[in-house]
Amino acid sequence: MEGFHVAIVGATGLVGREFIKVLEQRNFPMRSIRLLASDRSAGTKLYVKHEQVEVEETTAHSFEEVDIALFSAGAEISNHFSPIAARAGAVVVDNSSAFRMDTNVPLVVPEVNAEDIKEHKGIIANPNCSTIQMVVAIYPLHKVNPIKRIIVDSYQSASGIGSAAMEELVEQSKLALEGREVVPHLFPHQIAFNVLPEIDLFMDNAYTKEEWKMVEETQKIMHAPERAISATCVRVPVSIGHSEAIHIEFSRPMSPQEARQILAEAPGVRVQDDPGISLYPHPWSAAGTDDVFVGRIRKDASHERGLAMWVVSDNIRKGAALNTVQIAETMIERGWI
Amino acid sequence: MEGFHVAIVGATGLVGREFIKVLEQRNFPMRSIRLLASDRSAGTKLYVKHEQVEVEETTAHSFEEVDIALFSAGAEISNHFSPIAARAGAVVVDNSSAFRMDTNVPLVVPEVNAEDIKEHKGIIANPNCSTIQMVVAIYPLHKVNPIKRIIVDSYQSASGIGSAAMEELVEQSKLALEGREVVPHLFPHQIAFNVLPEIDLFMDNAYTKEEWKMVEETQKIMHAPERAISATCVRVPVSIGHSEAIHIEFSRPMSPQEARQILAEAPGVRVQDDPGISLYPHPWSAAGTDDVFVGRIRKDASHERGLAMWVVSDNIRKGAALNTVQIAETMIERGWI
Repeated sequence: MEGFHVAIVGATGLVGREFIKVLEQRNFPMRSIRLLASDRSAGTKLYVKHEQVEVEETTAHSFEEVDIALFSAGAEISNHFSPIAARAGAVVVDNSSAFRMDTNVPLVVPEVNAEDIKEHKGIIANPNCSTIQMVVAIYPLHKVNPIKRIIVDSYQSASGIGSAAMEELVEQSKLALEGREVVPHLFPHQIAFNVLPEIDLFMDNAYTKEEWKMVEETQKIMHAPERAISATCVRVPVSIGHSEAIHIEFSRPMSPQEARQILAEAPGVRVQDDPGISLYPHPWSAAGTDDVFVGRIRKDASHERGLAMWVVSDNIRKGAALNTVQIAETMIERGWI
Repeated sequence: MEGFHVAIVGATGLVGREFIKVLEQRNFPMRSIRLLASDRSAGTKLYVKHEQVEVEETTAHSFEEVDIALFSAGAEISNHFSPIAARAGAVVVDNSSAFRMDTNVPLVVPEVNAEDIKEHKGIIANPNCSTIQMVVAIYPLHKVNPIKRIIVDSYQSASGIGSAAMEELVEQSKLALEGREVVPHLFPHQIAFNVLPEIDLFMDNAYTKEEWKMVEETQKIMHAPERAISATCVRVPVSIGHSEAIHIEFSRPMSPQEARQILAEAPGVRVQDDPGISLYPHPWSAAGTDDVFVGRIRKDASHERGLAMWVVSDNIRKGAALNTVQIAETMIERGWI
């Protein structure tokens, strides 16, 4: 039997379940699959390719004979188990924030910096969802006309926090529609029929960690440590799909037409840009798909070398599970494993 | 009996009804009030200061003996009836887009350019909602440290389209929660649990009219025709309250602390900025209030002379009815009527 022994850590979570779906849909060359989670979730049975697989508790012995371990169980679990898995001989592709800015760990979006995978020492990091969709959309332009500065304001869905947050959005919405009081749990304030400029923790510089991830991770992935980037990350009452209003300053002017042509050829990108028929990306149409959708491409009216655009993607797929699996696929295709 | 003869055109609409509320709450010096609307709404009875007033059809004779006419019935009605009202001797304060960019018509936010009111020739225009809250928040900073460039991305509520759109958001949300199909009417696509980067019509330059209003109106109000401004205007599933992520470049660096101090003293502004306790403005808490709320004030990480901030206001009050009434109040206070 050909293929790789794969383990999923955090298999019962929102991204963990999407890992299974993506591996199946893409016919990932799996020889075996091991589903791992906390002791609380152990015993849960999930279907993989029409066969029931029982979820096991993650332990120090879980990674014996595992070739590729996909992690999405939070930074704490990754910090603890990723080095154990790597020492056991597995290549870890980690969707947590634990190792993203570690100089020994490549941070990879295959459409942008696949070559960085080669440098891995057992762990490869998957970037934050909002970073991934942005760099997929802007890197093809950057290659042609280096980007000097990026300003991005996001419209991020509840699924970024996980399935419990998606359920809370539904419950809050029902209560609000009935005119009843909403008591937020996973959100800092009511999210139903509201927007909140707080995602992840606040840092001393008054940015949130989510915003700072967009700055630092983009710089690392694009090998541009000095690139000027600013972000405001905002939670909106959407279930799945992150949107971003992006304003770019290039080295030279770039026409919207040129940008559209470049992006039409770019891997992982789908241009949806015909205002006359209200064609532009939005979360409702992007959810459940693999592409990074780009629309509203126009001159930035405030800068002669500027372009503005609107970028939407499914944050659970390209923003998490899909990109992680694509990193593993790239390793395999290029013979780096 | 002291006071002015006031007429409201569009009295049965969302902003029209808010005019009545604001006039009552602020004890506007009214001698009489005439409620005007289309023939379809004529006969409707509304309460003004606990007395029933019957809505009349707007005709060429409606403005006889009217001192101040507040219009919010769309650009077509304003185009037709505002000059008639002005010729009849009324001062028109118009909340439509009809005359905003007319060089003979002052476009006024009292906190910014009250003096412009003096130049009126019978008609004064009230700016677009998203413009008003932005200029109230940035003008106090601009006075101290001239602004060179503004990038703003908005999160705008359904009430910007009117009460029918608020109802459609509710109906769409109920259907979506039941897993039923949503057919949009007033929105170009589903707005429930979605965001849409389309507000008002698209122009040839691929900006929407809403976005271009933020550019041109801001330039006119701030007497800064060359100011570099870019905007992305986005509809979000919120009932009342517009939010804006704003990125400013000043002439000289400005610290967040200095900005907070200036804004703490600024008219019409309330600073809500304590990330440690998740204190920042959001639509749910701003709805129904008069202030322009500012928070998330921080260095713009992408520019040495930059600041980023988050501005929220009730688009029906300060964004429409309140600002219109404040223009009339300013006229009265300064003896310009």
